[in-house]
Amino acid sequence: MEVNETSTKERIISTAISLFHTNGYKGTTIREIAKAAKVNSANISYYFNGKQGLLEACFVRFFEKYLSFLEEEVRNLQYESSDKCLKRALYYILNYQSDHHLLARFVWREVSVDSQIVREIISSYLMKERFYFKQLMKEAVGDKATTTEMNYFIVQLRSMITMPFLNSQYLREVWQMFPHEKYFVDHYFLIIDRWLTQILENQTKPFLLKAAFL
Amino acid sequence: MEVNETSTKERIISTAISLFHTNGYKGTTIREIAKAAKVNSANISYYFNGKQGLLEACFVRFFEKYLSFLEEEVRNLQYESSDKCLKRALYYILNYQSDHHLLARFVWREVSVDSQIVREIISSYLMKERFYFKQLMKEAVGDKATTTEMNYFIVQLRSMITMPFLNSQYLREVWQMFPHEKYFVDHYFLIIDRWLTQILENQTKPFLLKAAFL
Repeated sequence: MEVNETSTKERIISTAISLFHTNGYKGTTIREIAKAAKVNSANISYYFNGKQGLLEACFVRFFEKYLSFLEEEVRNLQYESSDKCLKRALYYILNYQSDHHLLARFVWREVSVDSQIVREIISSYLMKERFYFKQLMKEAVGDKATTTEMNYFIVQLRSMITMPFLNSQYLREVWQMFPHEKYFVDHYFLIIDRWLTQILENQTKPFLLKAAFL
Repeated sequence: MEVNETSTKERIISTAISLFHTNGYKGTTIREIAKAAKVNSANISYYFNGKQGLLEACFVRFFEKYLSFLEEEVRNLQYESSDKCLKRALYYILNYQSDHHLLARFVWREVSVDSQIVREIISSYLMKERFYFKQLMKEAVGDKATTTEMNYFIVQLRSMITMPFLNSQYLREVWQMFPHEKYFVDHYFLIIDRWLTQILENQTKPFLLKAAFL
């Protein structure tokens, strides 16, 4: 690919991320993207085969990187403790999302919509994500938790690492927390770290069968 | 208000919830809502003053109820332990969202968009939510945590109670968990219950200052 092509494609993608982020996927037209990126609409069709292709390109960009942190640490399980690998993956994922907070926010919001493309994302990337998390958690928790418990931990963990980026406006305005800042990431990571340490330490406690007040 | 008016208004709202849920707020037109609800578009203008008024009505419906569970338990702090009050509020909130999962999903998704109406929701309902959570947590945690720590716990807790409803398709397809079923709510509540118990018990442990691997 020529340098010019790369930079045009790149400009289209980053413009799309910004507009999708602000107006939502359905609220953005190809014409608006073309205008803001200073390209011809036909260019977008040529490179991405239309708006849905552009959405796919955003998803691919985000999830390839996101999953690479998990994949890398699954490989590291051979050399280092699972606890360390898992936590490092989480730390990198938080940083990546913070550095690309517009993309992260838009992707997590869009993944909550029922659609064919989301179904495809789920069956490819999010099944992979599940697999990696299970590998990392299995090593860390060992046989101290049942499969069901483990699944719930992963779901909980995942909700913690994605939420600040999805709800950045809420965090900013209600809590004066700023997910795009390094300070936030470091502090938030420690909260997750502590939660994980407690989960890993306390797995031997018998699981409550009924809520105390019911 | 006449019985007929109530039922027409109700029909418009529930149709709007269903269409907003499926196609998003921006992806839904008044005309589509009118057609599906079998009313005249003018009726929607009359009752709700257009699409944005309808969105507001959905938000109001959801948050009034959602906040009522927290408010009620803040009142109960006089009679019962804070631990019990907090957990009961969470249990009711999970059940409410499960019973109204289309509305819950749509509202949480929409609240993640930057817009004037969301800013208003935040400054009214979500500031109130913050206030109630702080009351409930303050009593439960006492002076064992700093204000910053407490804020992070609340943010974490909130992400846990809303995530399954926002990401119901993901939970269904990746984890075979079904947030609209009673079984899910009871099980998920126990996970949150355990997390809270650990948080409340372990507050005296010194807070880690640096992640172990950094």
